[in-house]
Amino acid sequence: MTPSQRSPDELPVAALIAPDILALLEESPADIAAEVEEMHPADLADVAELLPENLLPAFFKALPAARAADVLEYLDEEVRTHLLEALSAEDAAELIEHMTPDDRADVLEELDEDRAEEILEEMDEAKAEETEQLLRYDSDVAGGLMTTEYISVDEKISVEQALEEVRAAARSGRREAIYAVYTKDPEGRLSGVVSLRELLAAPPGSRVADVAWMEVVRVPPTADREEVARAASDYDLIAVPVVSESGHLMGVVTVDDVIDAIQEEQTEDVQKLGGMEALEEPYMSIGFVDMIRKRVGWLSILFVGSLFTAAAIEFFQGELDKVDILTLFIPLIISSGGNSGSQATSLIIRAMALGEIAPRDWWRVARRELLFGLVLGLLLGSLGFLRVLVWNWMGWNSVPTSHPWLIALTIGGAVFGVVTFGSLVGSMLPFLLRRLGLDPASASAPFVATLVDVTGLIIYFSVALLVLRGTLL
Amino acid sequence: MTPSQRSPDELPVAALIAPDILALLEESPADIAAEVEEMHPADLADVAELLPENLLPAFFKALPAARAADVLEYLDEEVRTHLLEALSAEDAAELIEHMTPDDRADVLEELDEDRAEEILEEMDEAKAEETEQLLRYDSDVAGGLMTTEYISVDEKISVEQALEEVRAAARSGRREAIYAVYTKDPEGRLSGVVSLRELLAAPPGSRVADVAWMEVVRVPPTADREEVARAASDYDLIAVPVVSESGHLMGVVTVDDVIDAIQEEQTEDVQKLGGMEALEEPYMSIGFVDMIRKRVGWLSILFVGSLFTAAAIEFFQGELDKVDILTLFIPLIISSGGNSGSQATSLIIRAMALGEIAPRDWWRVARRELLFGLVLGLLLGSLGFLRVLVWNWMGWNSVPTSHPWLIALTIGGAVFGVVTFGSLVGSMLPFLLRRLGLDPASASAPFVATLVDVTGLIIYFSVALLVLRGTLL
Repeated sequence: MTPSQRSPDELPVAALIAPDILALLEESPADIAAEVEEMHPADLADVAELLPENLLPAFFKALPAARAADVLEYLDEEVRTHLLEALSAEDAAELIEHMTPDDRADVLEELDEDRAEEILEEMDEAKAEETEQLLRYDSDVAGGLMTTEYISVDEKISVEQALEEVRAAARSGRREAIYAVYTKDPEGRLSGVVSLRELLAAPPGSRVADVAWMEVVRVPPTADREEVARAASDYDLIAVPVVSESGHLMGVVTVDDVIDAIQEEQTEDVQKLGGMEALEEPYMSIGFVDMIRKRVGWLSILFVGSLFTAAAIEFFQGELDKVDILTLFIPLIISSGGNSGSQATSLIIRAMALGEIAPRDWWRVARRELLFGLVLGLLLGSLGFLRVLVWNWMGWNSVPTSHPWLIALTIGGAVFGVVTFGSLVGSMLPFLLRRLGLDPASASAPFVATLVDVTGLIIYFSVALLVLRGTLL
Repeated sequence: MTPSQRSPDELPVAALIAPDILALLEESPADIAAEVEEMHPADLADVAELLPENLLPAFFKALPAARAADVLEYLDEEVRTHLLEALSAEDAAELIEHMTPDDRADVLEELDEDRAEEILEEMDEAKAEETEQLLRYDSDVAGGLMTTEYISVDEKISVEQALEEVRAAARSGRREAIYAVYTKDPEGRLSGVVSLRELLAAPPGSRVADVAWMEVVRVPPTADREEVARAASDYDLIAVPVVSESGHLMGVVTVDDVIDAIQEEQTEDVQKLGGMEALEEPYMSIGFVDMIRKRVGWLSILFVGSLFTAAAIEFFQGELDKVDILTLFIPLIISSGGNSGSQATSLIIRAMALGEIAPRDWWRVARRELLFGLVLGLLLGSLGFLRVLVWNWMGWNSVPTSHPWLIALTIGGAVFGVVTFGSLVGSMLPFLLRRLGLDPASASAPFVATLVDVTGLIIYFSVALLVLRGTLL
């Protein structure tokens, strides 16, 4: 049974194999390589994570260097850092040299700067320099995601020559980006792209330029990962070329890194939407203090924001004292606003992430959401209106009122106003945050709810003053 | 400038080209194919969407059939459906025959059943049958995502023979899944996989079985898209093989479909998290009535849920009348519970989607969240405690109290209890929903907030009764 077939409730394959490896490490480490030869590096990484930390260096040394580098790539960040601290700088450098340039940069970025410097010094000079260049980009932009190992050829060569380049690259042990071949014009600028599939299908004797696509979908090195993901997903690309302003190919982001980037971006978005800072580690492995720190910040900000609700109620205390029944509906009304606001915010944040909505669309969105808000407000407002009247007719009120119709109008009107306002504010907040240079996903459901709580109370009491003045107030 | 380079604020390339196409359609449709030869089908689909609907059939007939099929794949669902209704069943069948089997099934699924039947009848019999088989699976499980066009060979053949198969497949115009070659054992069961890269790098004369990986990561046809995405992302696969219970390869899900599946799943999760039903269309193009329907359902359910808050307040009206100041903090306290609940829910839903947490982990999660809840509750509770005392010392209260320390203790204690309870409920709800066979993502932030609103009030008033009995109550 392969790992992806098991349900999450079954024991992973790694747990079955780890004890054997442990025994071999003590008795005959030389046999380990053969024993695990057929395993996927991702599974071997799981095995490594189950071994005692002090045996990790021995385990990695027992594997051929290229294989060990593969496993290193899939290893949990914390375990990897520990291993690279425990190995000598020379051994660590040898291991990292066997990784692709983008993975090298990713791994070194996790280490503390001095250690990374030590390892870089032990590396082959050309590889070290290439890695240092990649390290200059943030890990969540195209420049930080790209690998510099790709195939680019003169556009004038023949298809056969290009295929030979691909074969040579495959044999060289380089691992990335051989399924697309990029062509260069005489000035060395990116001029076209042809997939390995198209190269294999090309009529013999043709030039690469004849079969290549001349309009190449591309991103600048500063494009953020969402944009890279969109290019890959909209155009079904196996690799997204990263191109400098002068038109030169700098590297490619391969599809496996695109998937990882999408997953990470989405994890971040969902966590921010939930009203907290994004975690850098999986839920189950993050440390206690880290977790509290990531959660308490927003909770405290929202708590302070909520203090204004107390102020709003205090301000209207006189009215509340006169019309007791108004107190009953405070949570109902502010929740209605918070809920409709959460809906609008989640919708807009997702549409922005998918590129369906651009910043200049704010006005169209505002009009749409105002309209949706009005209709939703009307529907929910009617429910609120009926709630008051039905309870009154049935005699269920423990706080009877002399003016049921006016109270019903107050509640219905307040719900209507709060829902409309919630939809509008919820939809505009992501635009505002983006305008301020912040991540729109920070407009979390709790943030919108808190914002709408305070204004919701003010709307509620204003409607009450308007409707009840002269009768109950 | 290529499309992916433009910022969302710039005019898309399609808008520039559509007028030319419109002119050509009227004057010399035969020239269209050459005019757009170098464009990516995704961009051509954008052009098609800008044309008047009545000209669409003429535009698609002006393209070579294989090219037209490519464009059809990228077309907006609504436009595509319209086109396939407008074309004759024969023409539609010819177009669809040129698509890959999985895309054929996807397209036919969008049409109404009678029309799909008509088109299937006009299709080549073998292709029609293959398509009908795929139509039996839901579009969000592996069986509905897979294509049946892949390369599988006898494990005993040579690497050269396998490469010849790949070349033949590339030349045949079949478009998917040539970057991995699957091997079969004598019984026809899947026995191994080798990437095109590895085939190209293999020493001449070796057998495929010598270079193939014998442990193949695989999914059953019923695996949902999240599981397929996890297999692709954990093992960096370019195609995920779908294998029957008997061990036979049924098809493969290619990485472009994996990316689309991840994006769709994520859109659904974010929208559900926002407290609404998932939309089937982009935000900007969904119809008015559809949008209202998707949103009003949850809002109404939550509204009815919120009615219990009114009942809770009514129940404790006597206490509220005696201690006026308690009313002030109602929104603050229920928001604190809602916010901490939203955090916990989003965290758990995302960790479940990524496979970091399995159903059997519920007890470990409960203990962790109880602990986090206690600490967060203590921190926020202290803020609440201080709020009451500081306002009292500064004389900012318009509703003074004779027992500031007791009121402070009530508010602090209630916040502590509500935050702890919110974290626990928010984290357990996704487990409960999953247990009931529902999507854990339905445990939206608003849902959790509403749930915690009612219980939060009960906690609040119970703490008040406990602390203030004998003094203020």
